[in-house]
Amino acid sequence: MESLKKRILEDAIIKKGNIIKVDSFLNHQMDTRLLNDIGKEIKSLFADKKVTKIITIEASGIGIAVIASQYFDYVPVVFAKKAKSANLDDDCYTSKVKSYTKGVTCDIQMAKRYLNADDHVLIVDDFLAEGQAMFGLIDLVKQSGATLVGCVSVIEKGYQNGGRLLREQGIHLESLAIIESADENGIKFKD
Amino acid sequence: MESLKKRILEDAIIKKGNIIKVDSFLNHQMDTRLLNDIGKEIKSLFADKKVTKIITIEASGIGIAVIASQYFDYVPVVFAKKAKSANLDDDCYTSKVKSYTKGVTCDIQMAKRYLNADDHVLIVDDFLAEGQAMFGLIDLVKQSGATLVGCVSVIEKGYQNGGRLLREQGIHLESLAIIESADENGIKFKD
Repeated sequence: MESLKKRILEDAIIKKGNIIKVDSFLNHQMDTRLLNDIGKEIKSLFADKKVTKIITIEASGIGIAVIASQYFDYVPVVFAKKAKSANLDDDCYTSKVKSYTKGVTCDIQMAKRYLNADDHVLIVDDFLAEGQAMFGLIDLVKQSGATLVGCVSVIEKGYQNGGRLLREQGIHLESLAIIESADENGIKFKD
Repeated sequence: MESLKKRILEDAIIKKGNIIKVDSFLNHQMDTRLLNDIGKEIKSLFADKKVTKIITIEASGIGIAVIASQYFDYVPVVFAKKAKSANLDDDCYTSKVKSYTKGVTCDIQMAKRYLNADDHVLIVDDFLAEGQAMFGLIDLVKQSGATLVGCVSVIEKGYQNGGRLLREQGIHLESLAIIESADENGIKFKD
């Protein structure tokens, strides 16, 4: 997705520890015009697929998922929660996810009544690095018996393992920008 | 907002401890068509006001804020973060917020470079009870020197203190549905 790559080159900041900061437009401050372009792109990549639900994980995925839903005839969005809340159902699918940027492992939860065997699910998230969040979400889908249509990461770090592991499992993964390297020489994308 | 009240009557579940669950359409599973109606309503309530930024707090506020932004000419959305992430700027506004549903106090953070004295800020959140999250967000706005245009809560619990405290301070607060009581007799709204 050229407009996204252009934006990454203009505004992303590379930090120590392979961290690519895109919080000026994607995951802290959000450019909702760009999110709309991303939503349209996701629809074009899954145009012929039946999708009844879009799922993501809090927090950064939510903005992308709700905007994308508008291009899928407003299918419901459900986000996995990272912490137990008094508001959450007792009856949840749960999985374990390790956060690359926060360095902690947490349980993620999704109320069973919002994901079931009839659903055709598209998973959307902002970043794909080692794939921990994505595999956690896929685990929730498996537990529900739903059909996994595919996974979308807005930005994939191509030099980490998540994308390869997902593709090796035959999962339909679409990454809107795949970063091949990010260092003092700047950011290079995979063609 | 009549369509919202209707939806609350149809789908909200009242739980012990004054907790009103609307997670089938607002803050776990999200009905993005309803979110669009909410976004339009927010715009109509602040139609004549200059708004350069919409801010909210993770996680439930994000979906509402990004959809609402589309009706404010796609102004940037910034969400306050509840946990320190390696991705977050060192230079942040911070405030303390107690969560009513989670029973814990946490620091909220917003990178200083995304909120400054030139901004005209609309604050959006899903629930208003004691107003802790809203006062935390207002504190961030004050620290930045920005102009606070107003606050929007999708659902206000009128029998708790947040709304009264905000209005007493002269803050322009709009709640799209104000619940007067929620008990075994069902939900009643304030007119």
